[in-house]
Amino acid sequence: MSPQGPPRIVILAGGYGGAKLSHGVALASATRVARAEAPVELSVIVNTGDDLGLHGLSISPDLDTVMYTLAGLANDETGWGLRDETWSTSKMLGRYGADTWFGLGDQDMATHVRRTQLLREGLRLTEVTAELTRRLGVTARLLPMTDDEVRTEIRTPDGWLEFQDYFVRRGQRDTVLEIRRRGIEAARPTPEALAAVAVADLIVIAPSNPFVSVGNILAVPGLHAAIAATPAPIVAVSPVVGGRALRGPADRMLESLGGTASATGVVEHYREHDPGLIDTFVLDRIDADEAAHLREAGVAVDVLDTVMRSYADRERLATEILKANLAD
Amino acid sequence: MSPQGPPRIVILAGGYGGAKLSHGVALASATRVARAEAPVELSVIVNTGDDLGLHGLSISPDLDTVMYTLAGLANDETGWGLRDETWSTSKMLGRYGADTWFGLGDQDMATHVRRTQLLREGLRLTEVTAELTRRLGVTARLLPMTDDEVRTEIRTPDGWLEFQDYFVRRGQRDTVLEIRRRGIEAARPTPEALAAVAVADLIVIAPSNPFVSVGNILAVPGLHAAIAATPAPIVAVSPVVGGRALRGPADRMLESLGGTASATGVVEHYREHDPGLIDTFVLDRIDADEAAHLREAGVAVDVLDTVMRSYADRERLATEILKANLAD
Repeated sequence: MSPQGPPRIVILAGGYGGAKLSHGVALASATRVARAEAPVELSVIVNTGDDLGLHGLSISPDLDTVMYTLAGLANDETGWGLRDETWSTSKMLGRYGADTWFGLGDQDMATHVRRTQLLREGLRLTEVTAELTRRLGVTARLLPMTDDEVRTEIRTPDGWLEFQDYFVRRGQRDTVLEIRRRGIEAARPTPEALAAVAVADLIVIAPSNPFVSVGNILAVPGLHAAIAATPAPIVAVSPVVGGRALRGPADRMLESLGGTASATGVVEHYREHDPGLIDTFVLDRIDADEAAHLREAGVAVDVLDTVMRSYADRERLATEILKANLAD
Repeated sequence: MSPQGPPRIVILAGGYGGAKLSHGVALASATRVARAEAPVELSVIVNTGDDLGLHGLSISPDLDTVMYTLAGLANDETGWGLRDETWSTSKMLGRYGADTWFGLGDQDMATHVRRTQLLREGLRLTEVTAELTRRLGVTARLLPMTDDEVRTEIRTPDGWLEFQDYFVRRGQRDTVLEIRRRGIEAARPTPEALAAVAVADLIVIAPSNPFVSVGNILAVPGLHAAIAATPAPIVAVSPVVGGRALRGPADRMLESLGGTASATGVVEHYREHDPGLIDTFVLDRIDADEAAHLREAGVAVDVLDTVMRSYADRERLATEILKANLAD
């Protein structure tokens, strides 16, 4: 822990899983404060590879999911978008002949309109995100992995697809044969993300998709190296539990891209990518047998209840990860 | 009337009054068709001097009022915006710290998002308007007075104000000392508006504000001359009835700009501007005495019921104007 001040946590996050774990840390921090302990200083480095332009607006789905969740505005029933949402703008856009396969609620629309306006005025995405989160009362720092445009593309038996075409419009039904990230070579990590990593006391890789969420973040040139260079422990929570992704296509991607659809498959994927990066893997209690085998193979594994069904689950998981990995 | 085909009507319109009279002509045309008569070909040349940029979006209030009215979507209770409107986007924009004094409903927002997108893609405002109206099933042609940016500004005792600042934010409470139109010298009339005027069988100046609606249209260089050059009769309906503007500040503008707040004041204003432009003025039955005096002074005046409270009123007024001014 940093000698003068609260512990600094960095979470690498995609959308839903990253949002829930980040919320857990925020809740744990509030509980610490209520007990007269130091709060946790949370920075969330968020995937922007699934950003898209639609209706002339700049949309950052993962940033928004994390922001809405931390602001207490998320729709916990659907896992995306905002609570008490209305859909008038989208219906009217449909009357005008615009594509409406990507669901944009009316409150959500305000985020994209405001973001687009501020970007056009010359602010970096990091600065725009700071402004939006501040206005919604979010105290955690949300940091785009880069301010440069990176666009994930998915090769399927039908050819290359833009990410949201694969993910939303075609409902993740295509077999994923290859992933590429347009613009990644020229992308730079932001000074804010590098600074957060440099002073972190703990880095947590959220239970997000290892390929198209965490994989994007680690692919930003210089960011992986900066993370690897930090003395802070690096912990990764498996998004695959009992052989299935908690949400989204991570399990099927693991198989179609040459691995196995299991927590072990997640561990192997990260270790193939960089054997020394992650200090501890967190697997769900359901996968205790796999954890035992991994430990036999010399991999450090913690076994916890990782499925976050309730806000209490979120806080408990975060608290246990903090307890296990932060020096007192 | 054009020898081969339906009569061609051009209306010069601001917002509400222009929208209602345009709707009246559309209703009259439908009735003609039901009676196996030729329909009316309606083109509405619309003021764009009160357009504004807000939230990075291009907003054309008068075009939208006419479009929504002709599409049957207008909120007839408030006289602006759409029926069954919701306000989620605007509320959320407020949370983000954006100005929300200019009311933008969620359905309305779609219009501005779509318009802005199409303008950024390189379409002219005339082309964008054609696309939007086509999608909403509007058969009349809505023609912006120009595709160039013109911005009305109002001098008040507090100094110069942007038009919507004066009109919406400050609620038209300031005394209007002077009007100017930023960009008007460089504005060009569109080929579509010039063509509509050139072949018109009748030009009707709607009961819109003579200064900041009709005045803007007539101030586009070349458009006034084109209108004056047409052999078609030109009819102007007074927006002042019984000494008061039916809506908005036209009566107070007449007084503060050196005229009188009456139908006669409207006639005098137009005749000072160009004594030969308008062939016939239409005054309300309430102002029959004024009409008599004007006739004594040699001005051609028709007296009709001009207040359009119902759809039937709209159609009746339009039908009477067509009957009086179109050769059979």
